Amino acid sequence: MEEFKLTTIEEFEAETNKLLETGKKVGADSWQQRVVNQTPHCKFGENGVCCRICSMGPCRITPKAPRGICGCDAAGIVARNFLRFTAGGTATHSDHGREIAYTLMETEAGGSYEVKDPEKLLVIAKEWGVETEGRDIYDVAHEVAELGVMEYGKIKGFQRWIKRATPERQATWEKEGIAPRAIDREVVTAMHMTHMGNSSMPEPLIRQALRCGLSDGWGGSMMGTEFSDVMFGTPHEMKTEANLGVMKEDMVNIVVHGHDPSLSEMIVKYAETPEMVAYAKEQGANGIQISGVCCTSNEVTMRHGIPMAGNFLAQENVVLTGACELIVVDVQCIFPALGPLSKCFHTKFVTTSNICRQPDSEFIHFEPAKAKDNAIKIIKMACENFKNRKKENVYIPQMKQEAWVGYSCEEIIHKLDGVTNSNVDEMGTYKPLVECVNSGVLRGAVAMVGCNNPKQRADFMHVELMKKLIANDIILVLSGCSAQAAAKAGLMDKRAKDLCGQGLKRVCELVDIPPVLHMGSCVDISRMMRLVCDLARDMGCETYELPVVGCAPEWMSEKAVSIGNYVIGTGIDTFLGINPYTAGSEEVEGILKGSVENIVGAKYFEEHDLDKLAQMMIDRIEEKRAKLASCN
Amino acid sequence: MEEFKLTTIEEFEAETNKLLETGKKVGADSWQQRVVNQTPHCKFGENGVCCRICSMGPCRITPKAPRGICGCDAAGIVARNFLRFTAGGTATHSDHGREIAYTLMETEAGGSYEVKDPEKLLVIAKEWGVETEGRDIYDVAHEVAELGVMEYGKIKGFQRWIKRATPERQATWEKEGIAPRAIDREVVTAMHMTHMGNSSMPEPLIRQALRCGLSDGWGGSMMGTEFSDVMFGTPHEMKTEANLGVMKEDMVNIVVHGHDPSLSEMIVKYAETPEMVAYAKEQGANGIQISGVCCTSNEVTMRHGIPMAGNFLAQENVVLTGACELIVVDVQCIFPALGPLSKCFHTKFVTTSNICRQPDSEFIHFEPAKAKDNAIKIIKMACENFKNRKKENVYIPQMKQEAWVGYSCEEIIHKLDGVTNSNVDEMGTYKPLVECVNSGVLRGAVAMVGCNNPKQRADFMHVELMKKLIANDIILVLSGCSAQAAAKAGLMDKRAKDLCGQGLKRVCELVDIPPVLHMGSCVDISRMMRLVCDLARDMGCETYELPVVGCAPEWMSEKAVSIGNYVIGTGIDTFLGINPYTAGSEEVEGILKGSVENIVGAKYFEEHDLDKLAQMMIDRIEEKRAKLASCN
Repeated sequence: MEEFKLTTIEEFEAETNKLLETGKKVGADSWQQRVVNQTPHCKFGENGVCCRICSMGPCRITPKAPRGICGCDAAGIVARNFLRFTAGGTATHSDHGREIAYTLMETEAGGSYEVKDPEKLLVIAKEWGVETEGRDIYDVAHEVAELGVMEYGKIKGFQRWIKRATPERQATWEKEGIAPRAIDREVVTAMHMTHMGNSSMPEPLIRQALRCGLSDGWGGSMMGTEFSDVMFGTPHEMKTEANLGVMKEDMVNIVVHGHDPSLSEMIVKYAETPEMVAYAKEQGANGIQISGVCCTSNEVTMRHGIPMAGNFLAQENVVLTGACELIVVDVQCIFPALGPLSKCFHTKFVTTSNICRQPDSEFIHFEPAKAKDNAIKIIKMACENFKNRKKENVYIPQMKQEAWVGYSCEEIIHKLDGVTNSNVDEMGTYKPLVECVNSGVLRGAVAMVGCNNPKQRADFMHVELMKKLIANDIILVLSGCSAQAAAKAGLMDKRAKDLCGQGLKRVCELVDIPPVLHMGSCVDISRMMRLVCDLARDMGCETYELPVVGCAPEWMSEKAVSIGNYVIGTGIDTFLGINPYTAGSEEVEGILKGSVENIVGAKYFEEHDLDKLAQMMIDRIEEKRAKLASCN
Repeated sequence: MEEFKLTTIEEFEAETNKLLETGKKVGADSWQQRVVNQTPHCKFGENGVCCRICSMGPCRITPKAPRGICGCDAAGIVARNFLRFTAGGTATHSDHGREIAYTLMETEAGGSYEVKDPEKLLVIAKEWGVETEGRDIYDVAHEVAELGVMEYGKIKGFQRWIKRATPERQATWEKEGIAPRAIDREVVTAMHMTHMGNSSMPEPLIRQALRCGLSDGWGGSMMGTEFSDVMFGTPHEMKTEANLGVMKEDMVNIVVHGHDPSLSEMIVKYAETPEMVAYAKEQGANGIQISGVCCTSNEVTMRHGIPMAGNFLAQENVVLTGACELIVVDVQCIFPALGPLSKCFHTKFVTTSNICRQPDSEFIHFEPAKAKDNAIKIIKMACENFKNRKKENVYIPQMKQEAWVGYSCEEIIHKLDGVTNSNVDEMGTYKPLVECVNSGVLRGAVAMVGCNNPKQRADFMHVELMKKLIANDIILVLSGCSAQAAAKAGLMDKRAKDLCGQGLKRVCELVDIPPVLHMGSCVDISRMMRLVCDLARDMGCETYELPVVGCAPEWMSEKAVSIGNYVIGTGIDTFLGINPYTAGSEEVEGILKGSVENIVGAKYFEEHDLDKLAQMMIDRIEEKRAKLASCN
């Protein structure tokens, strides 16, 4: 076994630079170049003080023009923009969850979509009061799916899954008027409140942002996670690899990219059939290599160990290898640049969703009912494209790391059961973890999530923060592009325990886990919300008292702000490395980073500097520990 | 009877200038000043080529930076902004309709809210398959209301009311994939499609804008109109007055402003009671004068003849009179400036909705279940404030016009029945109107709608276009701030017939109507959609063949763009006097003003010059007439 060593950001960048050389040769554009073209950014927009909500404007707040034409001031404009930003994220995550629910309606025994985790389905059915006794599991699935879809538009009541939160959280949400109603309604309410001539006071707008976010985290996103687990299996620990080196020069390389696993599951399922492998060989390849980018990648790596080629800002790199026969995308975070870029290579760029129509792509409308046909068509297209590779343009960086993935809540408990004495202690709880936290062997946990953003050096904040935190005996739970950054660097290799403080190292050894745990895609932050609520219960405290914080150091999408809102709504402080276009109003910043704590017991922090951000999180965790100790 | 003469725009402006003098004296800000401060507007924003959808930006398209960081080009950015703009409007109109539906659930015999038009309710019940035989009318109302609310979130099927459209329209919408599903879902789909890394091709984005708009016009807005009619009565012809002169120096002046009639109906209902009149007198006034601004005004003028004080850009003027004791607002198009402005006077600024929280206001949360108490509290507050008027600041311009209002579809048919020979011809149809159009006595119709916008001289385009069109024998149907512009000018006086061409003049005389017909508030553009569909049926042609166009010469709100999309979606060309932030993409403009006609049979036109815009509409109407004649 080769010596373990992290891959450095410098090594990532050196290989990216080589790929960009190929790009230059073939006349390709790149995000690196576009960032140069787009910098500096408009300060009005960046500070959130530009309003385009009606056509009297755009209006921009300056000292000489302190109000827009309607009379709205900076606080109103910034808060409205913040709420709309949130609404975009809630709509996006939740609509993904809805698509998964519609797919669950299509499940049938022996079909493309089956119920792979009936146990989880029965748990949900019980929570939702669906009769299960003596019923065919597919009847139960279809009824649960229909109830799930109804969560988006029901005319009364709150989201069903808020019952999973702690009693204190549920009471707080009701008391503060932010318990989430139908998901779509929360988005529409947000759009209505922010329409010209409606709300211009920051606090009501921010309260709606919390409510909207909570409908995502405890509604739409949780739907995405739970129903995906039902259909595709709840993730369990497995080994895989990450970084561009997972692509194979002698194989047909298919890259799956996006978020909704309904498509990628089918690509994985059918690409493994002997027929498709034979087809690839007929075309001169040694087989088919699937790898992933972004959250679609997280979905299939968590359940099938499909290797991760890269994260958000590496999406162009997979094409730049010259060895990508086909990149097939579903929804969200797909660069429109991929179309023109793939035209510089032999790569087929295939779009599949009405939600995501992109130029210079081949559109194959993916419908669950035609899943098999669609998948086979796409796989064959990739195989047939193998022969069109231009050898002179092929360069696959030989850079990859081993990664252990699949740490769903169920799997974490399963791992903890491994260190529980079943004769003495209760199985199936977080209690062994609680003991480590209480004793101080573990100082706390950071949920690190979110994207890449060129406003931070790509992956640098993720990886370097993680290194600092684990060295301080803080365990990490990850999702989204943050998880892929960790995997690429090697932090999901179990040998990364040697980079930890003595406490965390010992925990990793005993429980047999890496110090940073891959919990899934961005909708899977709902797993983390369940984790903190169950942890609070097992620790006998409230969520906002836990030595746990959230962190999105390189976030870029509206979804991240929706997430931020439901994370603080759930009582967990959230540390940002990028400002959410709110710097233009002290009042708004004062609420988000201050008084919102009076509403939900948690707030935002923001810091762009690596060392300071790490220290702020460590300090906050120690502050929580101190309070918790004095309570107990 | 005094000689009839229109009030000119110059006269409007002269009085506004006098009011602004008072404003200056008391240190008030004004939109006129804020426009100066905010001009020139940002060209990137105005052209729609600025993108703030993710936090990598903002990105701005220039010749040197033709793509955003993600790779999206001008066409994608402009089209995404256009769709989001539409979604904001759809959400807003439709959420108003939902509130009305929830209010309908609260109706009871003898309660604050009753069923005043049971006939209309029974028509809707029949359309929706609700049992009516032998049932209490309130049971029917509650069931219909619940079905109405479900239209926002139902999990399958299209909007119920699309069945009211012509068979050709319904078929086109299904064929083109733009038949509207649940209203909230169309908004959420729009938000999802426009999220970072989703759709960046203009046509799919514009198709969703059409679908979203159709869910407003044939869903949410129609709900607002129909259920308001059920509860508050379907409008019938009545006489009222318009312009600031309707406010009374010796009375307690209460101004209702906003859109949702649930509140203003209660203010009107209870302010007329002897107790409240007596209360006003106790406070030293001669009574209570209610007048309105914006669409709340249109709602109560159409049903009760409550006078119209002004429209959107006159909202500050009512306070500047110094004689406004209280301005009570519900939702939408409320200047946040009203708070600080009212502080310069004795005026109480009362906000009532969680959707519309504004600074420097007194918030009295209006709930249908507490309607009476809320209304009385507000009326008393106004009365008690009468004594605080500062006489030296009072100046009410003595400027007003007589106006005939209340032309719902039902009322138009009723008026037409008056010229139908019941022994020979069918009653209850638009056939007398059809005959006038076919014979050329009437050349066609323009539906003129929308707001004011400082980018056009306030009310000028509305009034001057109307004058030109009626002189050319084109009848006008109006709603929203456009209708109030007409009323203020005197165009809703029946004597305005003398300004018409000979054909229209004769029609006005025979049918006994003014040449411009007030059809209601901005949600009531749904009345116009029914009108064109029924007219097409009675003429034996399709909607897109009618010599009818829509026009929004001074629009400013997102709602107007949602309206534009459902108007062209219904097959009626729409003429804009302000660009919807799309000028930055020839491709997007090419679709909206060109190829969208291949999808829905109608398109957008845009022109900022009065004479050219009038001529374009006349030409298009004549073009349609010529085609229609050659078909017949």
